Amino acid sequence: MKAPKKASALNEIEGVLPVQSIGAKAIANFKRIKSKRIDATEIFEGLRTGNMASLSQAITLIESTQPKHQALANDIIQNCLPYANQSVRIGITGIPGVGKSTFIEAFGKHLTQLGKKVAVLAIDPSSSLSRGSILGDKTRMEELVKDPNAFIRPSASGTSLGGVAQKTRESIMLCEAAGYDTILIETVGVGQSETAVHSMVDFFLLLKIAGAGDELQGIKRGIMEMADLIVINKADGDNINKAKLAKTEFNRALHLFPNKPSEWTPQVLTCSAMTHDGIADIWQNIMAYINFVQENHFFQTNRNQQNFFWMQETINAHLKNNFYQQPAVKQAFDELSNAVKNNELSPFVAANRLLDKYFKNINP
Amino acid sequence: MKAPKKASALNEIEGVLPVQSIGAKAIANFKRIKSKRIDATEIFEGLRTGNMASLSQAITLIESTQPKHQALANDIIQNCLPYANQSVRIGITGIPGVGKSTFIEAFGKHLTQLGKKVAVLAIDPSSSLSRGSILGDKTRMEELVKDPNAFIRPSASGTSLGGVAQKTRESIMLCEAAGYDTILIETVGVGQSETAVHSMVDFFLLLKIAGAGDELQGIKRGIMEMADLIVINKADGDNINKAKLAKTEFNRALHLFPNKPSEWTPQVLTCSAMTHDGIADIWQNIMAYINFVQENHFFQTNRNQQNFFWMQETINAHLKNNFYQQPAVKQAFDELSNAVKNNELSPFVAANRLLDKYFKNINP
Repeated sequence: MKAPKKASALNEIEGVLPVQSIGAKAIANFKRIKSKRIDATEIFEGLRTGNMASLSQAITLIESTQPKHQALANDIIQNCLPYANQSVRIGITGIPGVGKSTFIEAFGKHLTQLGKKVAVLAIDPSSSLSRGSILGDKTRMEELVKDPNAFIRPSASGTSLGGVAQKTRESIMLCEAAGYDTILIETVGVGQSETAVHSMVDFFLLLKIAGAGDELQGIKRGIMEMADLIVINKADGDNINKAKLAKTEFNRALHLFPNKPSEWTPQVLTCSAMTHDGIADIWQNIMAYINFVQENHFFQTNRNQQNFFWMQETINAHLKNNFYQQPAVKQAFDELSNAVKNNELSPFVAANRLLDKYFKNINP
Repeated sequence: MKAPKKASALNEIEGVLPVQSIGAKAIANFKRIKSKRIDATEIFEGLRTGNMASLSQAITLIESTQPKHQALANDIIQNCLPYANQSVRIGITGIPGVGKSTFIEAFGKHLTQLGKKVAVLAIDPSSSLSRGSILGDKTRMEELVKDPNAFIRPSASGTSLGGVAQKTRESIMLCEAAGYDTILIETVGVGQSETAVHSMVDFFLLLKIAGAGDELQGIKRGIMEMADLIVINKADGDNINKAKLAKTEFNRALHLFPNKPSEWTPQVLTCSAMTHDGIADIWQNIMAYINFVQENHFFQTNRNQQNFFWMQETINAHLKNNFYQQPAVKQAFDELSNAVKNNELSPFVAANRLLDKYFKNINP
């Protein structure tokens, strides 16, 4: 039993790479955590001087499920707070096949060439099941991976979107305190994760490709309404005309939507991550947005609201988790919820029965 | 202190009418509740024989905040369950000014003329503040109010949307057990209440009027995506051409949206609640939808999921309520949440501090 447990702990601490690709550095990190020589101040100071290993280690603590690590992580986050909040946070979404990794590679390189320090994080709840795609992503960003001004961290693993999202939200703070001024958060474009990302970024970019017919196919309801900018990727070669047509169509659709709380009017741009055409315009557009919302104060209001939202989300997630994990609730849950689904029991009566069990057993 | 308290209790028990318009019957109802002569079986049996007073009384119990009434209400709901679920539930939304009341009057009359028994419920969280609009609504449905095959119940009052919505959800079951086969649930079209209504209906109808320019203005993000049918009202007189143009525009917009889980393709129709033109087509469209989703089994799957959803919602609402109402949490909340909003404290640390307080004090 010992060996597999250790391997899985190692995996969890790294939270990133399949066991076979954990290098000497990662194992050293793991041993330091294991040997309790680490402390929050040490990691925080390393991170503040721009030490990538310290940043990685801090995120590893955030992603750990051990209470001891979580306490350390909370200390580090609290230390980072005065230095966080000093960046532009950009969410990037799009369905698989739209060229997200290639786009982030081209866009990230453009930013580092402008002197930016770029951190790339991801929210992909599915990654806890199939770790393959994560490694694939890193391989597809081979230029950015080598760039000293870029930090790439694949999605945390976890059993719930809430948990994964919270870890990413915390990692943003660490990256900011480590001096990264542009945070790109990638999401997969097929599920609930877009809403989570939207609640932690300043700017939400929807990546599309021109296709035949129904352009919005496959994009989750509501994602287009969240977008501050739609970018039609792969506008190169034979695809250029199709991309221009798609641009017209999306522009028309965008005009049908109501005003955004930011008062910003989203635009549609085309680009080619391959030829880099249009990449500079995208950054221009984002800068114009940031100036706009800083002037009308939406930028800060939105961030304050996001902070408050994350406090509430954390509370709600914890309350729910505590409830659904309680043995008394777990025991009764399936039977009651099946009765509800089959219309044999009122949803409200079933809820009350479960709540009674919960509160009776909460402090045994 | 006694007199105002009694008046407010009366008001609460009725949940509907301003004090001055409570008639002798309502006072008798109130006295029966007050004198404890009521029991769940008696009300249930009255309700099953189509007695409107019993139905009203049962809904009054649902809307009461007294634990004794809630226990009675739960018994009645549980008794009603085998007879509930036998109706078509239709959500109707649209911004103020779109003619919702007039539409429901015309549509409801059309349905009773077809031999249907129609119940009209409403979700309007704002109604707890301004009771005026409720009475206004009833006056604007003067034909339907007099119709023996129609039952109209204005929105429950309450401090939270969740609470108001739950009461409406429970009232649906009672109306169904009382023999109403078509339930119309009206909502105000400006807030979160549409999502709540959408989670309790089979069919979601968005009412619009033709306007100059930006047709979707004022409609909350996402509402159009929930619609199974868009109806452009006030298509009469000089307005007919404008309405036809709006129809074309909405049709185009609808085609840009992804497929619905029901696989139904929403349409755009025009109608005049004044001349009754188009009203029959709307019912035809709804019937076609119901047949369609009964054949592909989405109808039942959706209802089962809605039941499960409401069980979870009730649990979550109760957990949150219990947390935020706890004195220890209440005392610390403002200071901690302000610190979070001002970026002085990490949202996660603040959440953990509040959770610690809560669980320490949960069973004093």
